[in-house]
Amino acid sequence: MKYGFGVDLGGTTVKIAYFDQEGTLLNKWEIPTNTDNDGGQILPDIAAAIADFLRVNAIDPCRILGIGIGVPGPINSQGVVNKCVNLHWGSFNLKQALEALTGFPVAAGNDATVAALGECWKGGGQGYQNMVMATLGTGVGGGIISGGSVILGAHGAGGEFGHMVINPQETAVCNCGNRGCVEQYCSATGIVRLAHKYLSANSTPSQLRSQLDFTCKDVFDAAKTGDEAAVQILEQVYDYMGLFLAGVCTVVDPEVIVLGGGVSKAGAPLLEGVQQHFRKYAFHGIRDVRFALAQLGNDAGAYGAFKLILDQTQL
Amino acid sequence: MKYGFGVDLGGTTVKIAYFDQEGTLLNKWEIPTNTDNDGGQILPDIAAAIADFLRVNAIDPCRILGIGIGVPGPINSQGVVNKCVNLHWGSFNLKQALEALTGFPVAAGNDATVAALGECWKGGGQGYQNMVMATLGTGVGGGIISGGSVILGAHGAGGEFGHMVINPQETAVCNCGNRGCVEQYCSATGIVRLAHKYLSANSTPSQLRSQLDFTCKDVFDAAKTGDEAAVQILEQVYDYMGLFLAGVCTVVDPEVIVLGGGVSKAGAPLLEGVQQHFRKYAFHGIRDVRFALAQLGNDAGAYGAFKLILDQTQL
Repeated sequence: MKYGFGVDLGGTTVKIAYFDQEGTLLNKWEIPTNTDNDGGQILPDIAAAIADFLRVNAIDPCRILGIGIGVPGPINSQGVVNKCVNLHWGSFNLKQALEALTGFPVAAGNDATVAALGECWKGGGQGYQNMVMATLGTGVGGGIISGGSVILGAHGAGGEFGHMVINPQETAVCNCGNRGCVEQYCSATGIVRLAHKYLSANSTPSQLRSQLDFTCKDVFDAAKTGDEAAVQILEQVYDYMGLFLAGVCTVVDPEVIVLGGGVSKAGAPLLEGVQQHFRKYAFHGIRDVRFALAQLGNDAGAYGAFKLILDQTQL
Repeated sequence: MKYGFGVDLGGTTVKIAYFDQEGTLLNKWEIPTNTDNDGGQILPDIAAAIADFLRVNAIDPCRILGIGIGVPGPINSQGVVNKCVNLHWGSFNLKQALEALTGFPVAAGNDATVAALGECWKGGGQGYQNMVMATLGTGVGGGIISGGSVILGAHGAGGEFGHMVINPQETAVCNCGNRGCVEQYCSATGIVRLAHKYLSANSTPSQLRSQLDFTCKDVFDAAKTGDEAAVQILEQVYDYMGLFLAGVCTVVDPEVIVLGGGVSKAGAPLLEGVQQHFRKYAFHGIRDVRFALAQLGNDAGAYGAFKLILDQTQL
């Protein structure tokens, strides 16, 4: 049996997980992400954490097949990162750098696509070869698996459909500078924005009106209790989600759509709502695509990162 | 040197081309598509045409690496077609059937994706590994190459973005039954439709008003002569094209977008017009994607079909 590591590198913490070659997660821990000195300490910290783990657990380095890592920013197929702003990184070959520091083979990918790979391997998309994962969090990220492999794209920006323009009439500006992006309607932030807009434009009574700083979760909770305004707001949200997911599906024709991220904690009502509007917009050839919730939570990135290096390894 | 065939199977004619392993097109001819008896004669006709060609030219079958074929309908990765309506076909394994008839290995794909593969190999996308091809004809088809391979999708419907809904407010119905599909604005038919709509809604003088049955080409020709209405109509068209292509690019992050099909005969003005609107909608990471015109015309399908079988062959 061989073993390896999946590393999920975030702006505040680095999640490191230790797997066997079957994909069983045997151990996991976190270290802080040190972004001082233009993030120059991040890779040495990861290398030291892994070396310590092997030493403390008396694991023979010969049994380690390598390290997979997901990074919060664009990265190309050669492992060159290009401005991970959260890490204060410029452009350099991360794969080569981490290989030099650890002595192990390294495979690297964008965090959102890597998380999608994890969900396709051991989570909500398990058993499928063609998957769209939408991560509905503070923003909207995504990843696409086609024929079992991640669609990386030319700049590692495959699956970045959070910035697909779905409403050219929008006047509010997205974080990216454009107007009408998916993220403005389907992220947690976007849902709260739509809710405020709805409450200003309508006089429908709503429990949300008594909470000045209501969150996305509050909107879902209110809808669950039958709050009419919240129900209407979510119908709008589901409609935008159905619209953009149907669009994505015309491009890549998946078997399953997996919804993850904080917003997906809304669970079954979200799945049902989105699916209903999706069918309205979906071309008949893709109308029967399945919907599923992400299952791996914060571990998806580590699973997917390990899968990246596993796929590159001859066992 | 090995040789092989690329077959582009259409509703009225079958184009057959003979290539060497480097992809030089050495010979090509057409036979009619006989759709009688539920299209049962189509594959035997192709097999006979190829056998005749080999006999007449005294080519040793040992030098033939195989046959690639593009079909006008959905086909999965195992070679099973599912309702090619133009051919009157139901569902069967086309790959196995043609292999049995010819004795050669067969690789099969959807005609639009196969044409995209051809353009990526020897046409407008040559030199790139990540390409979006949009075929703007009577309808809008497409194909996507990611990391050098075609995105087939679960039902062979990858790249069917002609039925991406880009205008949920649309009241007119698309051929597919939905409202607001790309095809309703960006196909030759869609452009004529938009032109009629513009001319009814505006009183701008236009040479198009004197032609009852003007075509898509007439609109482009009028715009070339400075016809204000035609210029405005094409601005609308370019805007829809820019919008949907920017959306497709957020999903698959290509290096190059290749425009093909009858509408692409408009050439440079089309490329420039679309690119200008594309930049408005494109996420910054993909704003610098190149635009190119398709170069292989009606031969794209044959090139791509041959490339399919070539990729599956150990030379």
